Amino acid sequence: MQTENFHPGLSIDCVIFGFHENELKVLLLKLKKDDRWALPGGFVEKDKDVDSEAVRVLKKRTGLDHIFLKQFHLFGDVDRIEPSHSDTMVKKGVIPPELKGWFDQRFVTVGYYALVEYSRVKAPTPDLTSERCDWRPLSDLPPMMLDHAQILKKAHQTLKKELNDQPIGLNLLPEHFTMPELQALYETVLEKSLDRRNFRRKMLSYDILIQTDLQRKGGAHKAPLLYKFDKEKYNNAILSGLQSGW
Amino acid sequence: MQTENFHPGLSIDCVIFGFHENELKVLLLKLKKDDRWALPGGFVEKDKDVDSEAVRVLKKRTGLDHIFLKQFHLFGDVDRIEPSHSDTMVKKGVIPPELKGWFDQRFVTVGYYALVEYSRVKAPTPDLTSERCDWRPLSDLPPMMLDHAQILKKAHQTLKKELNDQPIGLNLLPEHFTMPELQALYETVLEKSLDRRNFRRKMLSYDILIQTDLQRKGGAHKAPLLYKFDKEKYNNAILSGLQSGW
Repeated sequence: MQTENFHPGLSIDCVIFGFHENELKVLLLKLKKDDRWALPGGFVEKDKDVDSEAVRVLKKRTGLDHIFLKQFHLFGDVDRIEPSHSDTMVKKGVIPPELKGWFDQRFVTVGYYALVEYSRVKAPTPDLTSERCDWRPLSDLPPMMLDHAQILKKAHQTLKKELNDQPIGLNLLPEHFTMPELQALYETVLEKSLDRRNFRRKMLSYDILIQTDLQRKGGAHKAPLLYKFDKEKYNNAILSGLQSGW
Repeated sequence: MQTENFHPGLSIDCVIFGFHENELKVLLLKLKKDDRWALPGGFVEKDKDVDSEAVRVLKKRTGLDHIFLKQFHLFGDVDRIEPSHSDTMVKKGVIPPELKGWFDQRFVTVGYYALVEYSRVKAPTPDLTSERCDWRPLSDLPPMMLDHAQILKKAHQTLKKELNDQPIGLNLLPEHFTMPELQALYETVLEKSLDRRNFRRKMLSYDILIQTDLQRKGGAHKAPLLYKFDKEKYNNAILSGLQSGW
């Protein structure tokens, strides 16, 4: 690592949520010679845009491209850094001594979050300071380094809040899905149950769904309606918000 | 300015919206010896939290304390900086030559926005590189330096979007106000007219208003109802969002 090529005192951290079979997980790195875990992150090359460096981190850890990745907050408190952290990493041989100066800086970090179908992530890969990269259930997180637990919590709060204004579901559900399947996705992210009728009414009012004539094979007598997203309207809603606003 | 006391390559910029008599303005600095204007901003001391430095900038330019100030985005593109800008500032004598190295860095900047009643800002004050500090109408902005026009635009988009989820009005309206006065505030920020009945229904459904028994003096035969905010519910809604969400 040529530290002079990087923007001083600036890092990025990615909260990568994974959804699969109505469970929400998060991709974490287990640190080497340390009981704690960390968010996937990295530094920013001097000649690269910060947002594109976050895309690079996501791609490096997950192999995934073209993922919805959103910047949500800069964490800039002085006390987010543990001054002894770099000493410990050098002593344990996790980083070479010549990197101590770099890791000794005060860092502010830019938080990003992504939501992916986690069965699409074939082989999550660890980085220099970690021994493995695993999906962990959001409801049962391991001890985390620095302020990474708070970053993760704020990312989840942001994701919940943005559900009021922004669609989710594309790339997380099959192409054709039932209203209960879409509702289950919302319930998983929001961690609460929703009223079936209100959900249906509100979701239809957003005008981003197309009702199809399809039926699932082997369906019962009363097969549920299958929907798909109207991709143009869906993408417009990502840009300009859902129609529920003012 | 002791540049070694500041976090390298990091600045903050504040978009301070002012509301008064149904007009939205923004507080800008006119640069010295340059036709362009800038957002009020500054650098981050090494031993200070980034958010508290933004409060300090707001206070220095407006004299106001205890203002709702919100971090909304980090602007981190490489091409947001003009490499010749610091040369020009030295040549024109706006900054001393020993500061050129500091201003030559690549900066990423954290954007904050605030919304204030602008008649409360008694004497907006310029900084080192500016000759005056003025309110300018949002609808007719002067030429701005670097990417400050984009930062301002994104701040306004964010403010509009957050109206879907967050109350505004406290400190911007008199203690007691009519529904049309509240609606006018929303219309000014959103830059569009709203349906009177829908506005009333939606606003009441948020459960943050208290209807009072008061009447304005000298009122007509049918004096309009006066409302005030339920401060506890208002503050809860700031923290956890309006009840319109999922």
